[in-house]
Amino acid sequence: MNMKVKEIAKIIEGEIIGDGDILITGVSGIKEAKPGDLTFIANKKYKNLLYTTKASAVIVGPDINNSVNTTLIQVENPSIAFAKIMSLVGPEPIVFPPGIHPTAIIGKDVKIGKDVSIQPYAVIEDYVKIGDRTVIGAGVYIGHYTEIGSDCLIYPKVVIRERIKIGNRVIIHPGTVIGGDGFGFATVKGVHHKIPQIGTVEIGDDVEIGSNVTIDRARFDKTYIGNGVKIDNLVQIAHNVYIGDNSIIVAQVGISGSTVIGKNVIVAGQAGIIGHITVGDNAIIGGKAGVTKNVPPNTHVTGFPAREKWEDMRFQAYIRKLPELIEKIKELEKKIKKLEEKNG
Amino acid sequence: MNMKVKEIAKIIEGEIIGDGDILITGVSGIKEAKPGDLTFIANKKYKNLLYTTKASAVIVGPDINNSVNTTLIQVENPSIAFAKIMSLVGPEPIVFPPGIHPTAIIGKDVKIGKDVSIQPYAVIEDYVKIGDRTVIGAGVYIGHYTEIGSDCLIYPKVVIRERIKIGNRVIIHPGTVIGGDGFGFATVKGVHHKIPQIGTVEIGDDVEIGSNVTIDRARFDKTYIGNGVKIDNLVQIAHNVYIGDNSIIVAQVGISGSTVIGKNVIVAGQAGIIGHITVGDNAIIGGKAGVTKNVPPNTHVTGFPAREKWEDMRFQAYIRKLPELIEKIKELEKKIKKLEEKNG
Amino acid sequence: MNMKVKEIAKIIEGEIIGDGDILITGVSGIKEAKPGDLTFIANKKYKNLLYTTKASAVIVGPDINNSVNTTLIQVENPSIAFAKIMSLVGPEPIVFPPGIHPTAIIGKDVKIGKDVSIQPYAVIEDYVKIGDRTVIGAGVYIGHYTEIGSDCLIYPKVVIRERIKIGNRVIIHPGTVIGGDGFGFATVKGVHHKIPQIGTVEIGDDVEIGSNVTIDRARFDKTYIGNGVKIDNLVQIAHNVYIGDNSIIVAQVGISGSTVIGKNVIVAGQAGIIGHITVGDNAIIGGKAGVTKNVPPNTHVTGFPAREKWEDMRFQAYIRKLPELIEKIKELEKKIKKLEEKNG
Repeated sequence: MNMKVKEIAKIIEGEIIGDGDILITGVSGIKEAKPGDLTFIANKKYKNLLYTTKASAVIVGPDINNSVNTTLIQVENPSIAFAKIMSLVGPEPIVFPPGIHPTAIIGKDVKIGKDVSIQPYAVIEDYVKIGDRTVIGAGVYIGHYTEIGSDCLIYPKVVIRERIKIGNRVIIHPGTVIGGDGFGFATVKGVHHKIPQIGTVEIGDDVEIGSNVTIDRARFDKTYIGNGVKIDNLVQIAHNVYIGDNSIIVAQVGISGSTVIGKNVIVAGQAGIIGHITVGDNAIIGGKAGVTKNVPPNTHVTGFPAREKWEDMRFQAYIRKLPELIEKIKELEKKIKKLEEKNG
Repeated sequence: MNMKVKEIAKIIEGEIIGDGDILITGVSGIKEAKPGDLTFIANKKYKNLLYTTKASAVIVGPDINNSVNTTLIQVENPSIAFAKIMSLVGPEPIVFPPGIHPTAIIGKDVKIGKDVSIQPYAVIEDYVKIGDRTVIGAGVYIGHYTEIGSDCLIYPKVVIRERIKIGNRVIIHPGTVIGGDGFGFATVKGVHHKIPQIGTVEIGDDVEIGSNVTIDRARFDKTYIGNGVKIDNLVQIAHNVYIGDNSIIVAQVGISGSTVIGKNVIVAGQAGIIGHITVGDNAIIGGKAGVTKNVPPNTHVTGFPAREKWEDMRFQAYIRKLPELIEKIKELEKKIKKLEEKNG
Repeated sequence: MNMKVKEIAKIIEGEIIGDGDILITGVSGIKEAKPGDLTFIANKKYKNLLYTTKASAVIVGPDINNSVNTTLIQVENPSIAFAKIMSLVGPEPIVFPPGIHPTAIIGKDVKIGKDVSIQPYAVIEDYVKIGDRTVIGAGVYIGHYTEIGSDCLIYPKVVIRERIKIGNRVIIHPGTVIGGDGFGFATVKGVHHKIPQIGTVEIGDDVEIGSNVTIDRARFDKTYIGNGVKIDNLVQIAHNVYIGDNSIIVAQVGISGSTVIGKNVIVAGQAGIIGHITVGDNAIIGGKAGVTKNVPPNTHVTGFPAREKWEDMRFQAYIRKLPELIEKIKELEKKIKKLEEKNG
């Protein structure tokens, strides 16, 4: 990378505060940045880092005007502007050219769109449909009757079982399993009899799913992942779960059967949500939280059992006060003893 | 689906309470049911849903006799009866016909039973034995000397390493790894030296294992999964763990090395159990519990550190009382001050 | 196995305390041992098991001199000595002879060292480098430009994406994914835009990584796993995480983005660590701990939110005292009431 600040500012339609002629030779995070690097601040709360960063230029939002030692490029959305520069300077992306590798096994009556890439050792069962420009990675398995939209990127070793529907522009990272049987048994005299899982999984448009995720097929009807949902690695989504549009599910979260997650919800890492409840739109579930009952919309819950964040923090504060409390009670005991003696 | 209630009742040997001539056009959960749907109640505690469900007929157990607006079909076990109907009306199941795909790689001295199906790109190493009618999915890897029983269903991309024994009628979902090395090191001056994991894994009959599960091979001897055990997705079972018959291990649970789990135990989602302890028969481990010591038989433990459920609930109640407690202490302080002034 | 104690002592250069002519027929853990078995004690704290074990001989360290009923073999490091015997008596290890299986797909300009083994259906993309004697398991996928050192063992179905660097003597268990995209989005008006993850993953020498682990590639620069690090199954390591040499990460741990873990750190099972913090050298993070802030070097933290262990234990003790506390307050109330009446 070898660009002047003013050239970068032009690409991202930003306003320069400082010296536009500085030469930028790399991109980096604000803490790790070296002289010559371009970096960014997505959030006003990291503003102080402007005073300590070694970066030569920093992309900032409209809320930062400080005069600092480093040159600023002011834009509407620093994250997106920075991402734009990153894709320009990053290594040439790996491209999987259209075409079906001769080792790919394609079942009967499979419908494949134009410019689809099917990589070595992929197995596509009968009656599958694949949309235009979708890439099916090496060793991917796609079960009977499954439909995948256009412009999807299915990484190696993903398994998508039968009768699943996947939208357009969906990215699925390696090792993920879509449509495994839901976990359902009827127990008679201590023996667990398998309950057939005859439903499916439906995944909307613009969804991204991390590595080694598991999304189970429904008992009946469907497990549903809304448009724009982003799912991190090693997440478990049980049968008949419904996730509303644009929700974010961070790594190692588990969502139990038939639970409904609203739109724009954030579930932070390692949280667990029991089955058959509802999490309202725009709710935030804290990391490692254990959610045991419905969460109203626009609510931030944390802890285990999960409570509203302010309440959970108050309880944490009370617990921190316990030593003091115990001391106080001892004191009161002494005082009362004295009073009793006086009054005895 | 297009069946009259009386036809359904005949199949599941149930008694009709209500109108047997109603036409059933689908199956569904009791909350999601539409008019025309058949549903069921497995458990008396959901009885109230009978008054709000839109289902046209509900399969119930012998403990429900209420006269409600909807037609009931009374059977011995509603879950199993409903499962029977579901498999009748569900989509035609995917069948993998017997035969060895020409791309499957079969090592030397492999013994394959009759009517076995080996799918594309499976790799079966030397000396493996596979029982009658077992299905080995696409891209499955089976290591040297491993033995798999009859009527098993091994889904795509499962890896079963060498010298593992698997019983009959076992289902293993995609991406699961059986027999990876146990996690064992001897640390000398800060450097971790690998301890050979020369043991194996033995899995009983009628076991079901979810997607992307990991079950490690033993340090010596074996990691053991008893008959009828059901394991959900993303579960970790460490080396030398023993799980008794018919226990249920829900998603994302982790069981540490050498721990013994009894029969008919339920370990709920995201629970963790430390190594070298014993969980007695019929015990229940709550979701997200962190079990740090032995659990006696027939005991329900919850929380972290896990305690008996009643005790854990009591502590939760005490913690909820903390604000009140603190208020009370302040009050007592004031009263004592007054008394002291009077007595001063 | 059929060896006399004195023959074993010779191999591990140990000193016999007891009868050197006893015949050893197997190896086992100290609790499970039967007569004829050899076992060991790694740690003085298990010394009492010497009195109950049925083993015929026990390998011990220099700190154990007790005269017990069983024969002892005293060595410098019992774990390593025992491991040596285990590899002698264990089943013949599975060997993958050098050579490239005809079904392996090798891209252009791939550099393969001498005596490398590439198993069936492996896919090696263009410009990959593989060091001497490394084994690439069945169905493994290795992305463009990735470099793998010498003497590595990559088990079946591992996916290593493009531009990753892996050192020498690295073991990666089945199903693990190295270099999936980090989880990063810029949200504009509720829509999440993907931030390119143009960085890579660098893994040092002598690293072992369990089954179904996920290690994400960096946003820029690299995610780093130091020399000698050992990672258990189902662990999540997010983008730009740095793990110092010889640290141990136990099963189902999650480490969030940009967090720095020092050297010789132990992170126990199911712990979670938030992003952008530092865990100092030699720190210990307890099982299921939720770490929300920096951990100083040489510190043992437990619980959620994680605190120093002694502090966490004190809080647990206080919570256990709550019932007593409540009783005491009730008593004080009564006493004060009496005093008030007297003073009224």
